[in-house]
Parts: sequence; structure tokens; C-alpha cells
Amino acid sequence: MMTRSREVQLQRRPVGLPTTDDFAIVEVDVAAPRDGEVMVRNVCMSVDPYMRGRMVDRKSYAPPFQLGATMNGGAIGRVVESRHPQFRAGDYVESNFAWREAFCAKGDVLAPLGKLVAPPSAYLGVLGMPGMTAYVGLLEVGAVKDGETVFVSGAAGAVGSIVGQIAKIKGCATIGSAGSADKVRVVKSEFGFDHAFDYHGADLLAELRRAAPNGLDVYFDNVGGDHLQAALSHMRPFGRVALCGAIAQYNDTTPPPGPNNLTLAIGLGLTLRGFIVSHFNHLRAQFRSQMEDWVTSGRVKYRETVMHGIERAPAAFIGLFTGENTGKMIVQLENRA
Amino acid sequence: MMTRSREVQLQRRPVGLPTTDDFAIVEVDVAAPRDGEVMVRNVCMSVDPYMRGRMVDRKSYAPPFQLGATMNGGAIGRVVESRHPQFRAGDYVESNFAWREAFCAKGDVLAPLGKLVAPPSAYLGVLGMPGMTAYVGLLEVGAVKDGETVFVSGAAGAVGSIVGQIAKIKGCATIGSAGSADKVRVVKSEFGFDHAFDYHGADLLAELRRAAPNGLDVYFDNVGGDHLQAALSHMRPFGRVALCGAIAQYNDTTPPPGPNNLTLAIGLGLTLRGFIVSHFNHLRAQFRSQMEDWVTSGRVKYRETVMHGIERAPAAFIGLFTGENTGKMIVQLENRA
Repeated sequence: MMTRSREVQLQRRPVGLPTTDDFAIVEVDVAAPRDGEVMVRNVCMSVDPYMRGRMVDRKSYAPPFQLGATMNGGAIGRVVESRHPQFRAGDYVESNFAWREAFCAKGDVLAPLGKLVAPPSAYLGVLGMPGMTAYVGLLEVGAVKDGETVFVSGAAGAVGSIVGQIAKIKGCATIGSAGSADKVRVVKSEFGFDHAFDYHGADLLAELRRAAPNGLDVYFDNVGGDHLQAALSHMRPFGRVALCGAIAQYNDTTPPPGPNNLTLAIGLGLTLRGFIVSHFNHLRAQFRSQMEDWVTSGRVKYRETVMHGIERAPAAFIGLFTGENTGKMIVQLENRA
Repeated sequence: MMTRSREVQLQRRPVGLPTTDDFAIVEVDVAAPRDGEVMVRNVCMSVDPYMRGRMVDRKSYAPPFQLGATMNGGAIGRVVESRHPQFRAGDYVESNFAWREAFCAKGDVLAPLGKLVAPPSAYLGVLGMPGMTAYVGLLEVGAVKDGETVFVSGAAGAVGSIVGQIAKIKGCATIGSAGSADKVRVVKSEFGFDHAFDYHGADLLAELRRAAPNGLDVYFDNVGGDHLQAALSHMRPFGRVALCGAIAQYNDTTPPPGPNNLTLAIGLGLTLRGFIVSHFNHLRAQFRSQMEDWVTSGRVKYRETVMHGIERAPAAFIGLFTGENTGKMIVQLENRA
């Protein structure tokens, strides 16, 4: 049977911080599935900082969103009607068909989630892309070793909050920066960081020196800009910087200058390595099994900031850049799940 | 017996490009060796770009030169008189006692060179620190693989000229930048680079696109600044940047901004890794044996720019920054060797 879906389209390319006027909500008919297809109603969808890059018309690792077309991204949905042998009504599936309430797609492009050990939204956060980003970024890219000192920027965010907790499990000393006093409290009391500070108006290097007098072995960079420069000035010999994101810069209309102290890397033998989670797809099964253990045993905690309804999706997205979220920003699309 | 030695002292800390007035030549008595000591007369000495950093009074991987004290650095000398069982008059030794004609030191701090397969000065260049920098920087830090595309800045220099030739031995396509039309000619005809260009007034990115339409796998950075930024804009996925030097910046009185495109590293999974040759001291024997083979078989060629006499050492050093040298800059201290 046909169904109706409200969807979010990019109406114009944002300049600087996006506004809700850059987006339009449209309502479309979704045709019933044909052979091999599945109809899915989304339960929740993800908004992620990396999507800002896709709103610019340039080649990058993810293709740019087209104007007047429905955007996409990570979503968890339930099968409504299936004409694909692998799926049955009621199954949870992960897909790239976010920014819409319902869709019909070939079964082959959907990932069956199997048995969930946590609410569906967790599979967009701690058990999904951000959690796996934290996992591979710290363990593979940062190559963290037991007992090292790890600094994480954006420590209250979906990725940063998990990085700190994995580092703690690995016996590391952890330092986090976050964007408000409330977030700093959560970073320490809930995510268990040893030190945390509010970066607003802070002398970042002084904060790092205070928190880690002997320097940093790993810096997990979600922020870029001043954070990266300060961390570089406080790295220990052979330290590693995992370049994961640069949210401080995503809305800049001209690229800001890079760190002016990059040559420190020479004498100290530092490694800076960029990555995106899909570079490590071969570790998906390992990640899910490990992180489900940590989450169900309570060793890794997570937070969500939830907005309700597809019409709030643009605001949820914009909120990533204005600090609205603690933990993963989720757009809940229906309560029937 | 006592001997006389002319030595170069740092008289004041250079601001910007050093001038010969920043240095003073003094003449000192060198006392005869005591038990365990060796007297050495230097045959040739090295001037290297990294020494510029040591003229600034700040903590770095090599301690700063003191004002009014004789500087140091790599030198090859011959033993004049030995009271150490490991050394005999006439032996060639490598030491850190450059910037002087003769010295007396404990035998333990001297490295016997053994049998030379090339003139002594080669052990300050292709068979010495710059050659080993090229070797470990390309093979270990750059982790170059057969058939990749390698860009080297400062390709006419002591390090860059060797990097390109090792890359060629490994079956790579090689691109070099150099500071004059003459150097570009040498880089191509003598060092065998596939492509080379004069960076003066060049659109670096356009040059790279022309020389390597499919992008770069490895960038060996001797220069920093605009070179690093252009290379980052032309890297292939999972490319590697070996951060070896930043000669373009060494005389800057304030640190210039870093590359404004460092975030490209995220999506492309790029690695930038800094190093100095001493991080790889465990590979010294392997390097020397391999490079002696390559040099004696003619597979690796090298050039020297030679200045004569200790009193020319400051000018030789300054010449590194004004492009006087093709290949290794050597100060020859006596012709009796």
C-alpha cells in the first residue's frame, strides 16, 4: 500500500551557520514496494556535523546534497511491508534514508539490525556510526596504549563522550573539553573523564598544562582550529593526533589558517592522521559486539538529546553547531516503535 | 702536542635571515689528548638547515647554541694523536664537533668510520645524516610502496635529491620542486626525477596537477609553507606526508599560519608524520650498507657544493637559505685529507 512521508529538502546552500530557511519540508507519496523492495517507516534519524560539508557543492568523501532533493543520512526504521526474502514486517533496519518519515527501497541497500540490546536510537549513536568512530579513531588511528594520556575535544558530544570512556577502559588518563559548565559536569560525572574544562574563553594550552603536566600522548580532534593548535603545543614525543572532525570550522565561509605550530611534529615525531569511519568497515562486527558488551554491562554510558518530529530535523541539525546537544542528537520520528 | 684551531662562535642570535655578522671566528689552543682522549683535525664539516633552529633560544630537539660559545654539528676528521685504544692516527672519525678545525675529545663520543668507499665529505651527505634522513623518511615514515607517486620539495638539496633517487629505485614516479632553472635541470638529468619544476612564482598546485594527474601518494616535505598546502590539496586517499623540514619558515620571525586545508586529511585518510633522523638510529647499519651499495654501483648519485676554509662556514650556512647549494653544502677544512 502507498503511504505518505514528510521529507526534508535542501532549499538553498547555507552560508555560515545554517538557518531553518535553508531547508524545506515537503510531503510525498511513497509507492508500495515491488519485488525485491521493502517499505520502511523511520523510527529515528541522525543529524551529524559531517552533513554540513555535504551542503556545500564540492567534491568530498560524501557527495554534496542536491538542491530541491531530499537529503539522506543514517536512520533506523521498521519494516512495514516487505517483498524481499531477507526482511519481515517489524524488523529493525539501518539505512541511509534519513530526513524522511518513510521510504521504499531495494532490500539490498538496507542493513538488518538483528536483535537490539538497546533502544533503536542507540544504533545511531553509541552503537552506530559515532560510537564506531570513537572506537576506531582511538584504538586504530590514535593507536592508544594502556596508561597513556588522552585529550578529547567535544567531549560531551556523540563521539567524544565515547572516546573518553574507551580510553578509561584502556587505563588512560582522560581530559575533555566541552562547551558549557553543564556539559563539563556531565563529562566528568557521567562519562568519567579525569579532567574536563569549558573551552569558552579558556586559555586552552594553560588548561592542558594544568590537566596533563607531562603532556599528551593522544589528541582526538573533533574540533580543529584553536584546539588543534593548543594540543600540538602540548604533545609528548611520538604522540598521535586522530583527526576526526573540525566542527569549529564547518561554518566558516573561508578556510581558517591551520595550526602555526605544525613543525613541532618534526622534532617530536608526531603523527597526525585523518580518518572517517568507513575506512574501517572491516571492523564493524568487532565493534558492535564489543560495544554492545560495554553498553549492556554499563561500562560505557551514553546520552541523547532528542527532538521530536521530522519538522524539527533542521533545528536539530543546526543545534549541533550551537551546542544544543549533550551526547548524540537524535530526531525521533514516531513513538509507535 | 698542542695545536691551534679556528672556530666559529655564535655572536648574536640572528633575526630573520642570518648574516655573517652574527658569527665570530676565534682562534683557540687545543690541548694535547689525555688518557682516553683523541685529537682530531677536521677534514670537512656540515652546515644544515636544522641548525637555524638551534640559533634561537628555545627548547627543541637539539639544544640551542650558546652565545659566545663554539657551535657544533656533524664533521668528519682524521685522528692526529690518540690516547684511546680504539683509535689510531690517520683514522677517519665522525663527530659532532663541527665549526672548528681541530679538537680533542674522549674517544667514546667519536664514531669510527672504518673503511670509506667514497670521499670523506660523502659521509656528511649521501652516506651520512642527510642520506639517512632521505632513506628513513621515504621508506619508514612515508612508507612508500612500489609504483607510487612521490613528490619531493627541495629536490636539488642534500636530502631531497636522495629521496627522489630512492623512490625511483622503488619503482615510483617522482616529482621534484627546486629553486632555479639550473637546479631543475640537475634534478631531472642527474637525479633522474620524472618531473621537476622551479617553484619561484609557480602555481604549485597547477604544477602538481600537471605532473601527477592522478594525485600524490607520498609527499616528502623539506619546505613547509605553500608547498605543504599545495601537496595536501593533491594527495590521493591514504596518502602520506613525511614532515622532514620547513626551510621556507626557518627565518620567519613569527610563525606563519599552517595549511588551511588540513581537514582534507579526514576524508582522505591522510597521515602526516614528523621525524628526525635520530628517531631511526636503529637503522644506521642497514642504511650505511644499503646506501654504500647504491653509491658505489652508481644507482644513487650525489652532488656537493663546497666552500673552503672555516672562515667560509657562516656564508655556507647562510647559503642554505638563499639557494646557493645544489646537493649537500660542505665546508672543506683542509686539503691534506
